[in-house]
Amino acid sequence: MSKANLFYAQSGGVTSVINASACGVIETARKNKDKIGKVYAGLNGIVGALRENLIDTSKESKQAIAALRSTPAGAFGSCRYKLKSYAENKREYERLMEVFVAHNIRYFLYNGGGDSQDTANKISQLSLEKGYPITCIGVPKTVDNDLPITDNSPGFGSVAKYVAVSIREAGLDVASMCDSSTKVFVMEVMGRHAGWIAGAAGLATEQEGDAPHIILFPEIAFDKEKFLRKIKSSVKKYGYCAIVVSEGAQNKDGSFLADAGGADAFGHVQLGGVAPFVAKMIKDELGYKYHWAVADYLQRAARHIASATDVNQAYAVGQAAVEFALAGKNAVMPAIVRGKGKRYSWKIGEAKLSAVANVEKMMPRNFISRDGFHITDAAREYLSPLIQGEDYPKYKNGIPQYARLKKQLEKKKLRKWKTS
Amino acid sequence: MSKANLFYAQSGGVTSVINASACGVIETARKNKDKIGKVYAGLNGIVGALRENLIDTSKESKQAIAALRSTPAGAFGSCRYKLKSYAENKREYERLMEVFVAHNIRYFLYNGGGDSQDTANKISQLSLEKGYPITCIGVPKTVDNDLPITDNSPGFGSVAKYVAVSIREAGLDVASMCDSSTKVFVMEVMGRHAGWIAGAAGLATEQEGDAPHIILFPEIAFDKEKFLRKIKSSVKKYGYCAIVVSEGAQNKDGSFLADAGGADAFGHVQLGGVAPFVAKMIKDELGYKYHWAVADYLQRAARHIASATDVNQAYAVGQAAVEFALAGKNAVMPAIVRGKGKRYSWKIGEAKLSAVANVEKMMPRNFISRDGFHITDAAREYLSPLIQGEDYPKYKNGIPQYARLKKQLEKKKLRKWKTS
Repeated sequence: MSKANLFYAQSGGVTSVINASACGVIETARKNKDKIGKVYAGLNGIVGALRENLIDTSKESKQAIAALRSTPAGAFGSCRYKLKSYAENKREYERLMEVFVAHNIRYFLYNGGGDSQDTANKISQLSLEKGYPITCIGVPKTVDNDLPITDNSPGFGSVAKYVAVSIREAGLDVASMCDSSTKVFVMEVMGRHAGWIAGAAGLATEQEGDAPHIILFPEIAFDKEKFLRKIKSSVKKYGYCAIVVSEGAQNKDGSFLADAGGADAFGHVQLGGVAPFVAKMIKDELGYKYHWAVADYLQRAARHIASATDVNQAYAVGQAAVEFALAGKNAVMPAIVRGKGKRYSWKIGEAKLSAVANVEKMMPRNFISRDGFHITDAAREYLSPLIQGEDYPKYKNGIPQYARLKKQLEKKKLRKWKTS
Repeated sequence: MSKANLFYAQSGGVTSVINASACGVIETARKNKDKIGKVYAGLNGIVGALRENLIDTSKESKQAIAALRSTPAGAFGSCRYKLKSYAENKREYERLMEVFVAHNIRYFLYNGGGDSQDTANKISQLSLEKGYPITCIGVPKTVDNDLPITDNSPGFGSVAKYVAVSIREAGLDVASMCDSSTKVFVMEVMGRHAGWIAGAAGLATEQEGDAPHIILFPEIAFDKEKFLRKIKSSVKKYGYCAIVVSEGAQNKDGSFLADAGGADAFGHVQLGGVAPFVAKMIKDELGYKYHWAVADYLQRAARHIASATDVNQAYAVGQAAVEFALAGKNAVMPAIVRGKGKRYSWKIGEAKLSAVANVEKMMPRNFISRDGFHITDAAREYLSPLIQGEDYPKYKNGIPQYARLKKQLEKKKLRKWKTS
C-alpha cells in the first residue's frame, strides 16, 4: 500500500493547548514519513474538508510546528459545525469521502469534544461501508472537562489554573480595599452545563479565609436567601467576600440566573452575564460596594498561564492518536488514565469512540461541599494535579510570541462545495 | 538624635507591584538599623495611622518581606480615604501628628497616586509648623500612569503587559472561531480618565491584522458611525474584529459610553460595563456574533504576568524613598527618569511633592493614531519598554504562593479615634 495522507481538524471552542495536540500529531507524523505522507489540516475544522481547504502542513517549518506547543487557540481555525446523521445529510458525508479519496487521505484525526468524537465514529463506519477504509482517531479536547472515560480533558487543566490564579489575585486585591471600599467581588467563569471550571477556582482556597468564599455551581439550584446569608457571614468574618459564579448557575426551575431579569421594559434583552446580575443583587439586598469581572475568552486562551500537566497531556494525546493509527487501531480516542498511586501519575489509554460520543461527564455531588458553596477534599484531590506546573511561552518585547503559520492550501481537485 | 521610626502606608487602588515598593522600603530600612528604628505599616493605609493601627513589620520574617516583592495587592491594606485640607479638617492632621509623636515616627512614606502625594506634602508642611519635623517622602504608584514628572508610574507596566498579553491571546481565539462563530470580541480595561491602559493593549499588534483592531480611548469622542464602519472593514479584511475599550470611553458630550443607556424604566441603573454595552450595539447594528470580557481587578492584581521592568522600578522607588529620607531630603518623591539613548534605560530621579500633587498626566494626542482607533509609533516607543521582561512568582501545587503576613499591631498608646 502506498503512503497515505493524514487529515487533522480542530473542532468547537478552542483551548490554550489544542495546538499542543496539533503539534503532537504533526511531529509524530513527521517521524513516520515512511508510513504517513502529508499531514493536511482542515482550514477552520471539518468545514475545511468539505470546502477542500486543506492546509499543507509540510510547508510549515520545524520551528513553526514546534511553536504550536505553546500557542493558544486553533492555529488552523476551528468551527462550530456539527455534521448531521448520514440519513439526514448524506451529501456531506459523500463529499468528505470524495475529498479524502481525491487527496489519498486514509487517516482522519478529529480534535474536539463529544460531538466531534461522534462525527469521527460515523465517518469510520461509513468509510468501511463505502469500501474506502479510513482510520478514524479522536483527539480529546474541551475546557468543559465533560468527556467520559478519559480521566480529564486536555484544555481543562489550563482554564482551571487560570481561574484559580485569577481569583487568588483578585481576592487579595479586594482584601486590601475592603476596609473602606469594595467588599464583594464576583468573577464569572465558563461551564454552561457543569461546574468543573467554577470548582477549580476553589483550589485557590488553601487556608481558612482565602478566596473564593463562595462558588455558585450549575449543579446546585440557586438559593438567594442562603447565598446572601453566606456573603454577610464572609464579610463579617474576613472583611470581604470573593465569589466565583459559573455562567451556568441556575435557579430551582432550571432557568439560568443571568436570564432571570429577562428583557427590560423596552424589550431589550439583558446585556450582562451572570456576574453583573449577581453583583447587582448583592448591592440591592446588602448594600455592599462591589466589583465584577467576566473572563470569557481570556480564560480559555490564557496560554501564558497554562498548566504544564495540561500541555504535556495535550501533546501526548496528539502523539498517541498518530501512534494508534499506525498501530492499526480505529474508531478510538487516546484517553488519560490516572495512576492508582498516592502521587499523581498518568498514562495514555484508549477509549472507543462509540462509548465517548455524546456522553457528558458531570461533576459528582461529593465534589461539592454540603452547603453547596465550595469544593470538597475529594474534588481537590482530583483537580489539584491537573493545574500543576508552569509552561511559559517565549516572550519578545514583553509579549508572548505565538506561532505564525503560512497555512498554504493544497491545490483543489474537485468542484466547489456549496452548503446545502 | 535617637533612632526614629518610619511609617509607611499604601493608598488608593492597589496594583500588582505596590508590595514590591513596600519590600524596597522595608528591606532598605532594615539595612539602616543604625538610623531607622521600626518600620510601621498602616493597617489599611493612612486610616491605620488615624486609628493607631500600626503594623509592626519587625515581626515579619526576612522571607515574608522578601516575598512581598512578588505579591500583588496591598499586603498591609489600602484605603480610599483622602484627607481634607488642614483648614477643613484640622482634627485629622492633629491626630496624625499625635500618633507620630507617640510612636517616635519621624519618617512618613506614602505609597500612592496624586492625592497621596498631596497629603504627604501637606503633612510635611504641617510638621514643620508644629515644630515636630517629619521627613515626608512620596512613593509613586498608580495603574493609571497619570503621575507627572516621573516617566511612568509603577503599577502601570504590569497592567499594560496584562492587557497586551490578554488581547493577543483572546484575539487568536476569535481568529480561530470567526469563520462559523464569534466575529467580534470586546475587552474592557481600566482607565477612567486617560487611555494609557487601553493604549498599551495596542502593543499586541505587531503585524498587520494582529489584534486589537480597534481601541476606544477616553481621549477620543466616540463616533458610532465611524466605529461601525471600522468594525465592518476589519471583519472583511481579517475575518474578525478584536476591540479594546477603556472604561472611560466617552461620547462627544463627555458622558461615559456605558452610561448612555442610563437607568431602565424601573429606575435601575444599567448593570453592565462598557464592554457589554458596545458588544450589544455591534450585534444590533451589524448582526455579528460577539463575546465580551471585563477584566476589572484581574488586570491590576495579575502578579503572575507582571512586567519585570515594572517590578524592578516599584522596588527601586521604595528603596530610593528610604535613601532620600536618610539623605535629608524632604517633601519629594522618587521619580523614574528615562535615559536618552536608543536602548531603554532608566534611573531614579526626584520630584517635588508640590509639583506632583493633583496634576494628571494625560496621554499625548500624538500617541493616538489619526483615525483615533489605535496607537502610533511614538506611543509604542514609550510603552514597549515598560512591559519588558517576565518576573514570575513562585508556585506550589500549581498556585502562586504570595506572602502571608502576621500583621501584628503595635500596642496602642492613645485614646480611640473616631471619624468625625
